[in-house]
Amino acid sequence: MRERLSVESYVTGILAGDRIMLSRAITITESRLPEDKILAQTILQNVIPKTGHTIRIGITGIPGVGKSTFIEAFGQYLTSLGRRVAVLAIDPSSKKSGGSILGDKTRMEKLSNHSLAFIRPSATGLSLGGVTRNTRETMLLCEAAGYEIILVETVGVGQSETLVKGITDFFLLLMLAGAGDELQGIKKGIMEMVDAIAVNKADGTNENAAGQAVSEYQNAVHLLPATESGYNVRVIPCSALEGKGMDTIWQMVEEYVVVTKSNGFFTKNRQLQNIDWMHDTVRQTLEDQFYKNTAVKELMPDIEKAVRKGEKLPGQAANDLIALYMKSQISSLKS
Amino acid sequence: MRERLSVESYVTGILAGDRIMLSRAITITESRLPEDKILAQTILQNVIPKTGHTIRIGITGIPGVGKSTFIEAFGQYLTSLGRRVAVLAIDPSSKKSGGSILGDKTRMEKLSNHSLAFIRPSATGLSLGGVTRNTRETMLLCEAAGYEIILVETVGVGQSETLVKGITDFFLLLMLAGAGDELQGIKKGIMEMVDAIAVNKADGTNENAAGQAVSEYQNAVHLLPATESGYNVRVIPCSALEGKGMDTIWQMVEEYVVVTKSNGFFTKNRQLQNIDWMHDTVRQTLEDQFYKNTAVKELMPDIEKAVRKGEKLPGQAANDLIALYMKSQISSLKS
Repeated sequence: MRERLSVESYVTGILAGDRIMLSRAITITESRLPEDKILAQTILQNVIPKTGHTIRIGITGIPGVGKSTFIEAFGQYLTSLGRRVAVLAIDPSSKKSGGSILGDKTRMEKLSNHSLAFIRPSATGLSLGGVTRNTRETMLLCEAAGYEIILVETVGVGQSETLVKGITDFFLLLMLAGAGDELQGIKKGIMEMVDAIAVNKADGTNENAAGQAVSEYQNAVHLLPATESGYNVRVIPCSALEGKGMDTIWQMVEEYVVVTKSNGFFTKNRQLQNIDWMHDTVRQTLEDQFYKNTAVKELMPDIEKAVRKGEKLPGQAANDLIALYMKSQISSLKS
Repeated sequence: MRERLSVESYVTGILAGDRIMLSRAITITESRLPEDKILAQTILQNVIPKTGHTIRIGITGIPGVGKSTFIEAFGQYLTSLGRRVAVLAIDPSSKKSGGSILGDKTRMEKLSNHSLAFIRPSATGLSLGGVTRNTRETMLLCEAAGYEIILVETVGVGQSETLVKGITDFFLLLMLAGAGDELQGIKKGIMEMVDAIAVNKADGTNENAAGQAVSEYQNAVHLLPATESGYNVRVIPCSALEGKGMDTIWQMVEEYVVVTKSNGFFTKNRQLQNIDWMHDTVRQTLEDQFYKNTAVKELMPDIEKAVRKGEKLPGQAANDLIALYMKSQISSLKS
C-alpha cells in the first residue's frame, strides 16, 4: 500500500490545483480501508467550501455513438474558451464483460494532454453503488482543484444512466441517425431523463440523415411531459469528429444554467441529490459494518452452504445472520 | 386492513391450488407490516418442499415489441398442452412515468380466464429491490400451488432485465425486425444475458424483414463469448399475433432444461440465485431496521435540512445518523 500524506498536504495540493495530489486524493476515496475512508472524509470536509460553483454534465448514449470522441471534441472546445474541464466515467463493470474503460480514456489523447483538462476513469471492480459514491467524491475533489466543468460519462447501458442523472446538473443524450420507430420505446425511457439530445456523426454523407433524425427526435420530445427543470429539451446535430456543434451544445448548457438558477430548480436538484447521497452512504455503511463483523464472517460459509443445499430458505438464512449480528453487537458492548 | 387467516388455511389452500388463497398469500408477502412478514415467511417455509420443480422463464424486450401479446399467445400454447402457467411482472415503476402494468395485464384476457393460468401483476410503488424480493416469493407460492411454468415479464427498460435474469432459469429476449446496426451496442449488453431471441411480429408484410433480422441476430450471437450454461443461444422468428413459433420456443426451453440439468448449470444457477436472495434480504432488513428506528426517525428531518442547506456533507450526516442509531440500540439494550 502506498504511503499516505498528511491531510494538509492533500488539501493544500488540491486547492493549488496540483494534479498529482488530486489523483492521489481520488485514489484514497476509492480505497475500501477504514482509515482511508476517514482520511477521504476529512480531506473532503476541508475542501468542500471550494466546491459546487460548477456545472456537472452527464453524457450518455449507446456504445458506438462516439462518446469518447465527443468528450474529446467538447472538452477541447471548452478548454479553448479557457475553461478547466474534468472528465469522469461511471463504469457499471457488468458481471459478464468486465467493462474496461481505460482503453477508451487513452483515446482522448489531445484532451488528456491539455493543461486545463483532467481525465479520471473510475476504478473498475467496484459495485455500482460504490462507483457512484466515488464519482461524487471525485467530482468534488476536482471542483476543489479548480475544474469548473465536470463531464461524467456513462459507460455501458441500463443502470448507469439513472446513476449519472442522479449526480449531474445537465444530462446530454448522444444519438445517431437512422434509428427507426421501433426504438421509440427505449428512447422514451431515457428521453424523459435528458436535458438535451445531440445527434452525433452529422458529417459527410450522413449529414442529411442526421438532420432528419433531429426533426424526428424533436417531434418525439414534444410528446413528452413538461420538464421539471423548466428548460425545454432541445435536439441538435453535431459532429464530434469535425468538432461541429460544440459551441451550440455549450450555449444550451449555459442557457440551462441561467433558466434553472433563476427558477430555483438548479439548487433544489443539487439539494435533493445530496439527500440521496446521504441515504446511499447510510445503506452502504450499514452493509459494510454487517459484512465485516467477525461473527457474521465466521458463520457465512456454513450458512451459504445450507442455502445452496436448500436446507435453509434465503429469508431464514438472512434472519439467522441478522440475529447473530445483533447478538455479537450486544456482547461487544458488554465486554 | 384485511383480516388474516391461520398459517394452515393459507398453506392448505395454496397446496390445493386454491387461487384465492394463493392471491391472498401473495398480498401478505407484499405487505410491509412486520407481522405480515413473519406470516409470509412461515407460509413459505411450509410450502417450500413443493416448490422448485418448475421452469422459470424471464421475458424481456423494449416497449412495443409485444410482450403482453406474446405472453398471452405463449401462455395459451402452454395451457393447450395441459401445463399450468403463472405470469408475474416486475415493474421498476420509474420515478417519472410511474409505470402502470395493470392496464397491460387486463389485455391478457383469454389467458387470465383460463383455468390452468394465473396472472399476477407486481405491486407498484415498491422499491426495485422490494419488487424482486416479492417476485421471488410470489414465484415460490405459485409453484407450491401447482404452476409448473412461471413467466416473469420485465416492464420498462434498464435495471429490470438484470433483476429478472437473476431470478429465472431461462431468459428470452423479444426483438423486432428493422433495427439497424447502430443498435448492436444496446443489443450486446442484453444479448449477453439471454438464452434465446425471438423476433416477434413475423407476420404479414413483415415476414421477410423478420427473417432477415433473424439472420442478422444469429450472426451477432455468434460473436458473443460462449455461454456459461453450455446451451447455445438460438434466434427464431415468431408471431404472437398469429400464435406462430410458440411450439419452437417451448421446444428450445425444454432443450435448455435438458442440457443445463445434465451439465449441472441449472442447479448451480438456482443455488447462486438463492445466495443472492439471502444477501438482498440481509441488506433490506438492515435498512428497514435503521429507518424504522425511533431516534433515527426523529433526527431525520433536521439532518436532511442541514444537508439541504449545505451545512453538513452527506457523508458526515450519514455518519451522524449511524452513530445515533448505534447509541439508541445500546440504550434499548440497557433498559
